[in-house]
Amino acid sequence: MSDLRRLRRSIDNLDAALVNLLAERFKCTEEVGHLKASHGFPASDPEREAEQVERLRHLAKDVGLDPAFAEKFLTFLIEEVLRHHRSIAETGIHSLGG
Amino acid sequence: MSDLRRLRRSIDNLDAALVNLLAERFKCTEEVGHLKASHGFPASDPEREAEQVERLRHLAKDVGLDPAFAEKFLTFLIEEVLRHHRSIAETGIHSLGG
Repeated sequence: MSDLRRLRRSIDNLDAALVNLLAERFKCTEEVGHLKASHGFPASDPEREAEQVERLRHLAKDVGLDPAFAEKFLTFLIEEVLRHHRSIAETGIHSLGG
Repeated sequence: MSDLRRLRRSIDNLDAALVNLLAERFKCTEEVGHLKASHGFPASDPEREAEQVERLRHLAKDVGLDPAFAEKFLTFLIEEVLRHHRSIAETGIHSLGG
């Protein structure tokens, strides 16, 4: 059971780091959303997304993470980002600030 | 457009960091999966999961991340982990190694 406790402490540390990085990532994508909205660009950019998927799948493979999971993770993030971007485009503001 | 490029470079850097942390997290949960399987513990632990959700929602709030998103993210991770744990329990091995 001490092994389980040790591992769970590491998982909790990693989750805290992940949450911090996600907060920083959403700060960036929020800025992107405002830029796109102010220039009348569409929220979605399939070409950029395809590049991101390709890049993350490679990075994942290099560090022993399932590339399919890395792609699923990126899709999960992009869906959330697009939801924010559309809300920025519609209202000009967003609850998480910019 | 130079602002967009700058922001996208930051997003790419953050994604690389996220993928690295996720790889480390799955190494830990894989070990947990083997521990649980060897002791005959069930893959899922609702009490631990409730604690994790509560903790992550608080951490998210502190850094300006939507707590509802943090919870959705954790659920997303836990679903993947449980899929791995069940596969470890059934086969004793898993393709991502342990």
